Amino acid sequence: MPASVEKPQNDRLLRALARQPVDATPVWIMRQAGRYLPEYRETRARAGSFLTLCSTPELACEVTLQPLERFPLDAAILFSDILTIPNAMGLGLEFVEGEGPRFQRPVQSTREIMNLSVPDPETELGYVMDAVRLIRKELDGRVPLIGFSGSPWTLASYMVEGRAPGDFRKAKGLMYGEPRTLHHLLDILARSVAAYLEAQMKAGAQVLMIFDTWGGVLTSDAYEEFSLRYVRQILAALPTENRPPVILFSKGGGGWLEAMADTGCDALGLDWSTDITKARRRVGGQVALQGNLDPALLEAPDEAIRTEVGRVLAAYGEGSGHVFNLGHGIQPWIAPEKMAVLVDAVHELSRQYHP
Amino acid sequence: MPASVEKPQNDRLLRALARQPVDATPVWIMRQAGRYLPEYRETRARAGSFLTLCSTPELACEVTLQPLERFPLDAAILFSDILTIPNAMGLGLEFVEGEGPRFQRPVQSTREIMNLSVPDPETELGYVMDAVRLIRKELDGRVPLIGFSGSPWTLASYMVEGRAPGDFRKAKGLMYGEPRTLHHLLDILARSVAAYLEAQMKAGAQVLMIFDTWGGVLTSDAYEEFSLRYVRQILAALPTENRPPVILFSKGGGGWLEAMADTGCDALGLDWSTDITKARRRVGGQVALQGNLDPALLEAPDEAIRTEVGRVLAAYGEGSGHVFNLGHGIQPWIAPEKMAVLVDAVHELSRQYHP
Repeated sequence: MPASVEKPQNDRLLRALARQPVDATPVWIMRQAGRYLPEYRETRARAGSFLTLCSTPELACEVTLQPLERFPLDAAILFSDILTIPNAMGLGLEFVEGEGPRFQRPVQSTREIMNLSVPDPETELGYVMDAVRLIRKELDGRVPLIGFSGSPWTLASYMVEGRAPGDFRKAKGLMYGEPRTLHHLLDILARSVAAYLEAQMKAGAQVLMIFDTWGGVLTSDAYEEFSLRYVRQILAALPTENRPPVILFSKGGGGWLEAMADTGCDALGLDWSTDITKARRRVGGQVALQGNLDPALLEAPDEAIRTEVGRVLAAYGEGSGHVFNLGHGIQPWIAPEKMAVLVDAVHELSRQYHP
Repeated sequence: MPASVEKPQNDRLLRALARQPVDATPVWIMRQAGRYLPEYRETRARAGSFLTLCSTPELACEVTLQPLERFPLDAAILFSDILTIPNAMGLGLEFVEGEGPRFQRPVQSTREIMNLSVPDPETELGYVMDAVRLIRKELDGRVPLIGFSGSPWTLASYMVEGRAPGDFRKAKGLMYGEPRTLHHLLDILARSVAAYLEAQMKAGAQVLMIFDTWGGVLTSDAYEEFSLRYVRQILAALPTENRPPVILFSKGGGGWLEAMADTGCDALGLDWSTDITKARRRVGGQVALQGNLDPALLEAPDEAIRTEVGRVLAAYGEGSGHVFNLGHGIQPWIAPEKMAVLVDAVHELSRQYHP
């Protein structure tokens, strides 16, 4: 039996994703291993650079487990960067202090894009698989481990822009000016992401998440043609046997939930602008829903956090199929104590919806 | 008869907003008077500062008319800044080169907010009304003139953050930490915007638009409580007799179209991520729709622009009630020739939908 199908002691997340009964709504938080934790900042300082932190399995494992020592979270998520695949393709990832990720060699011409090839995950991204195996060992079956990748469109945007996109001028220039070249890039990325997620699954990831961070900047038609089509390609390429549940998150994707649910994924991540009651009515018979507290709430007084957690839980309503999360990653300036208030509120206030 | 109800020679926009038959779909473009035009940059240089340009009726009139000399647009829009009201409230608006608007005195405490009062439009914002009157005179009835204001929530965000909001940390801190103080601010702003729009109407604006630029950063519940509620207050406060049609635009508001249409406005502006076919099905029986080409298209080859214009027109379909526009403002680096391609394509390709 592959590691990915061993059942963890706390299986709330897996049950909720399968829309099976749970005792309380499971909760994990995007970027739960991150800068808001002093122990993360300590490990990050010890690593010397963010890239060393990501690419050293022992350090990645250490920070992955940190939030679980503090909070009764229902899942761990692999600590890694969203841009590992383009880096393995040779674009030269670097992090400029205060500016985020940059590529030394962004792909800007058709020739550069035609020269790219699919990286082999076990050799060229072996450090990620080693981290997955080590985390699974250290977790010792306590909670499930979530693996992840960026979506093809999101990775392509970074690769073409050379950095976190602002106005998407270059990426959309390619989309509207040379769509065939962009399709070529997206096809290579879809094959790369599928191989990468399959390798994470084989290494022990029990849930897979696809972050389509930039899907929401597209028109409806372009979202279908340049983003969702390649997510579908990934889902079709993953092994059907023992495939872990897949969560698909498009920030700003509230208008396309039906199409997203039709990709064959198991759950949709919702950003905080999406009404979870309406979302459940639209697609809740087909997929589980993850989300969607406004991350800004974590600076509010404790009582406001509890009230808003209660509101999100009530908006989803009775029954399983809800995974509590923020609508986007936790911000670096949040006090860790606020995270405790949030996690406790989810577990305590959700029991009434799971009678 | 007040100036606002005189019928312009080209009344396509007014007819489309009233969902009455037209010969072709009307088109105007957000920021059509702006930096992409060399003649605008020339006037801007002559003015010395952006604030002088906004606050000198002759100069504001000059740039308002510039795009109409070049392109057969179906409307003029008052050239002004979105932050005139907070400036009149004493916050000290300034423009830092390359950084956009800033307030010298942002409002950060309850005391500062309690001290604000509603500016009198004819005295404290008289330069705007003078510009409206002058533009109407110079337009000489050719096309209708659109007046506008920011929404209370959008203005409040700028006033609390002190600049274009990034993470909305301060504005949302107030929202979740001291909601009553924010409600007080929003109420003052709603009364100010209502008085401002009424004065523009009396000065001659034939259409009014409310820009809720930051509505999309809110949760569904917060959008209702902190943004839409105050738009409703404005619409209720405007005179019912001879009230010009009102267009409401919330960027990222695609999830809330039904609620937006229920405010009593006449049209909804759609950003480019919203599917206009679905939007029409949802609210087209109640309001007109404005939008929603991706602004990035204007860097594409001419044929791609024509194809995508055709796609948006087809997506709206037969009959009146559609005002063509971009889904957001035109970007400063666009070549004016591209605008000509767009405007001509709209008029030419839309005739088939108005048999």
